[in-house]
Amino acid sequence: MAPADAIIDGGNSFYKDDVRRSTMLKPSGIHYLDVGTSGGVWGLQRGYCLMIGGDQASAQRLDPLFATLAPGPGNIPKTPGRERIKSTAEQGYLYCGPSGTGHFVKMIHNGIEYGLMQAYAEGFDILCGANSDNLPAGLSYNLNLADIAELWRRGSVISSWLLDLAATALASDRQLDGYTGFVQDSGEGRWTIQAALEEGVSAEVLSVALFTRFRSRREHSFAEKVLSAMRKGFGGHIEPPPAVKMKQGL
Amino acid sequence: MAPADAIIDGGNSFYKDDVRRSTMLKPSGIHYLDVGTSGGVWGLQRGYCLMIGGDQASAQRLDPLFATLAPGPGNIPKTPGRERIKSTAEQGYLYCGPSGTGHFVKMIHNGIEYGLMQAYAEGFDILCGANSDNLPAGLSYNLNLADIAELWRRGSVISSWLLDLAATALASDRQLDGYTGFVQDSGEGRWTIQAALEEGVSAEVLSVALFTRFRSRREHSFAEKVLSAMRKGFGGHIEPPPAVKMKQGL
Amino acid sequence: MAPADAIIDGGNSFYKDDVRRSTMLKPSGIHYLDVGTSGGVWGLQRGYCLMIGGDQASAQRLDPLFATLAPGPGNIPKTPGRERIKSTAEQGYLYCGPSGTGHFVKMIHNGIEYGLMQAYAEGFDILCGANSDNLPAGLSYNLNLADIAELWRRGSVISSWLLDLAATALASDRQLDGYTGFVQDSGEGRWTIQAALEEGVSAEVLSVALFTRFRSRREHSFAEKVLSAMRKGFGGHIEPPPAVKMKQGL
Amino acid sequence: MAPADAIIDGGNSFYKDDVRRSTMLKPSGIHYLDVGTSGGVWGLQRGYCLMIGGDQASAQRLDPLFATLAPGPGNIPKTPGRERIKSTAEQGYLYCGPSGTGHFVKMIHNGIEYGLMQAYAEGFDILCGANSDNLPAGLSYNLNLADIAELWRRGSVISSWLLDLAATALASDRQLDGYTGFVQDSGEGRWTIQAALEEGVSAEVLSVALFTRFRSRREHSFAEKVLSAMRKGFGGHIEPPPAVKMKQGL
Repeated sequence: MAPADAIIDGGNSFYKDDVRRSTMLKPSGIHYLDVGTSGGVWGLQRGYCLMIGGDQASAQRLDPLFATLAPGPGNIPKTPGRERIKSTAEQGYLYCGPSGTGHFVKMIHNGIEYGLMQAYAEGFDILCGANSDNLPAGLSYNLNLADIAELWRRGSVISSWLLDLAATALASDRQLDGYTGFVQDSGEGRWTIQAALEEGVSAEVLSVALFTRFRSRREHSFAEKVLSAMRKGFGGHIEPPPAVKMKQGL
Repeated sequence: MAPADAIIDGGNSFYKDDVRRSTMLKPSGIHYLDVGTSGGVWGLQRGYCLMIGGDQASAQRLDPLFATLAPGPGNIPKTPGRERIKSTAEQGYLYCGPSGTGHFVKMIHNGIEYGLMQAYAEGFDILCGANSDNLPAGLSYNLNLADIAELWRRGSVISSWLLDLAATALASDRQLDGYTGFVQDSGEGRWTIQAALEEGVSAEVLSVALFTRFRSRREHSFAEKVLSAMRKGFGGHIEPPPAVKMKQGL
Repeated sequence: MAPADAIIDGGNSFYKDDVRRSTMLKPSGIHYLDVGTSGGVWGLQRGYCLMIGGDQASAQRLDPLFATLAPGPGNIPKTPGRERIKSTAEQGYLYCGPSGTGHFVKMIHNGIEYGLMQAYAEGFDILCGANSDNLPAGLSYNLNLADIAELWRRGSVISSWLLDLAATALASDRQLDGYTGFVQDSGEGRWTIQAALEEGVSAEVLSVALFTRFRSRREHSFAEKVLSAMRKGFGGHIEPPPAVKMKQGL
Repeated sequence: MAPADAIIDGGNSFYKDDVRRSTMLKPSGIHYLDVGTSGGVWGLQRGYCLMIGGDQASAQRLDPLFATLAPGPGNIPKTPGRERIKSTAEQGYLYCGPSGTGHFVKMIHNGIEYGLMQAYAEGFDILCGANSDNLPAGLSYNLNLADIAELWRRGSVISSWLLDLAATALASDRQLDGYTGFVQDSGEGRWTIQAALEEGVSAEVLSVALFTRFRSRREHSFAEKVLSAMRKGFGGHIEPPPAVKMKQGL
């Protein structure tokens, strides 16, 4: 590579690595831009937005490239109050600031994503549990989750693209039997919590949303065994074996 | 009122009250439907969806009324997989089940809403805190939250109507200085947690989202004073007075 | 029963039931006291404390009974600052207030218990996980949890009776292999959260501690399946089947 | 310093720094031990336990020193099941493993401490809130927290040294009016969450306990303002000004 060349890291890198790399490349005159993208596998149809960090002049130089990749305003309504604000944000790309900011903003985006997903997930779980044997007759409901998800897409306060996806999944698999419930995470959620810790900012929902994923990947946590051991210790409680569990559990 | 008349409770009532009331009215032949609505003050422009509970025949009889009030399919894309599913959900109204289900489903809707809102709120807080003095130079960012919110409306995974509202608020008040940060709750969030407790379903995010609102309404909690008292007890730590706090806090 | 007789409910009843029952019994002249006890199966050796609610005169009349049952001061050091405070608390029994307070105070005791247990449980889980394959060489540790629990009993800030019980369990079963990790709850934890909701007081730790128990009793939650379904929706992520899970999980 | 000299870091250092430092010192033949201690300002009276990490031979050589500093078995009852276990843990000091383990174990100790403290804090807060105006007459209680804390020291399941400290504080300041409620944290709690994130272990209670401290140090969080802004956006809700807050808040 030659001086004035530009490297674009368009993946989900850790923003501190961007800072390190761009600093390292500076003496060689090579520009380094960190660009977070969001849109998932639907990017081609729906478009995907770009969060750009790095040297501002470099970002400026590559503006035509970003403008081409970005979805443009499409038919998304203009935000009231932005009539006089000049920004490429409405085009679907944004220069966020110095090196690292592109991936930092993308990281927070993913942290939020985990929280949103968990909020829907818990809500549907409670809807599903309305059919629980634990509930008194007359206060137990067998609800059609697929229809409810579809309904909420229509003018409700919680309409969103993630809800659209939930509605799609429920439409063809009403009990979501095709899923084991093992949920992975891709790193940005953890970095988001780490950023919150470093800033001293509370992130209860974002962290708890991540931890439920960790838990989903274990048969049983050691923590749970410690609880059982203590319960036996003070109360003589013997937890039922797994066979019983299947019946008692939800 | 005469037999065969129908009462529609279109507010945010507690679903157990619906069950009680409809049972009470049954002998008199008066029908009682509980109808949750979502759409807020934007209902007139955006439409609002209807969640209906009660006697199915009554709901059937009033179908023209609900069909008229409901937003209809509008220009919202059809959910893949629903091509052969017959349901009024796509019209924006849905018979959910026996008495109480309309408000039960609306209650969960609001519980989810609290979780979604808190996820965005924490994310923006961490973006805002990227400017914190606690961070090392070169890893501290001054981000434009209004532009970021706008950007995320464009093809991102976390696009939603709530995000649209956040973008609108930030467009005209970038630091949200016009808000004190005192946040109320309207009851459904609490009932959602209560339902989770009765079902035995975990609702970490929904409950924590509610508790941050409780906390926002207090100068300081007694819990915090207990923490300070213990810290002084074992470590001799004296917490700084409020004046110092202003400087040290974020 | 005759007027002036007294009923003592010494179980773990719901405090609102106490209020209802004592009100119901009032016209008949029968006294009703709600008495929460804590000490578990070790009560005989360690003593157990008594939390008493109801009519004060009745409680006064039965004072000799409570004084006999209570553990007395034993060799527990006097609390500094209580030299001039007159109270039976140091004897291990306490009149807490009107009907319901005995069980209300016991309920909160159990709520706290859940939180304390979960704090230890998570700590031991992280100690245990220090041996995880996810960690880089040189930063992965194989720790002796039994010895660590024992050590912390010796002058540490987190010494407690619950820790004593954990140390006992770990002494004879270092991996706690004898426990399935299925953890029940007995009701008071749920009521504690309900009380917090009614008061408008934040109870993040107490509620989350309860929810981990709910989760421990399910193979997989529906919430987790919703997460997987959404992840597949936006990212094309296919979660690995359970067989893979065993290897990848902790 | 000369080869074979030993450095003991007896503070609250980050365990990864220990690993780095001991590796750095290795070529020079200087030994480096990381020793976490717990006992607080009461160490002199109550003793304090020692968690030791580093080269085992070095730790062995300094055993007399640790044995002298450690509290010894005192009058703390022997843990059932440890009759045949040989370990210095009962003396109040323990070699935990290679470099970093001493501070790693101490770090987790502090993480647990935060969780325990928050559990008590929330419990007392709910006891305190039983007097709330939000509650119906007859179900509102004015409880004596100082006496309740004292009572729980007597045979209850939640007796602990931290409870002793809470009882001491409440004995002389029943409303804890001497505390502002501004709560600091000293770093180990954050590192504990970071370790959990790296291991992929859930730590809901420990993280939430830390976040309440973060929150206690802010007048209002930006997150709360985002919530208010959204509520105004969809519901037209105008949050009351702070003056009203004082009356409405707890």
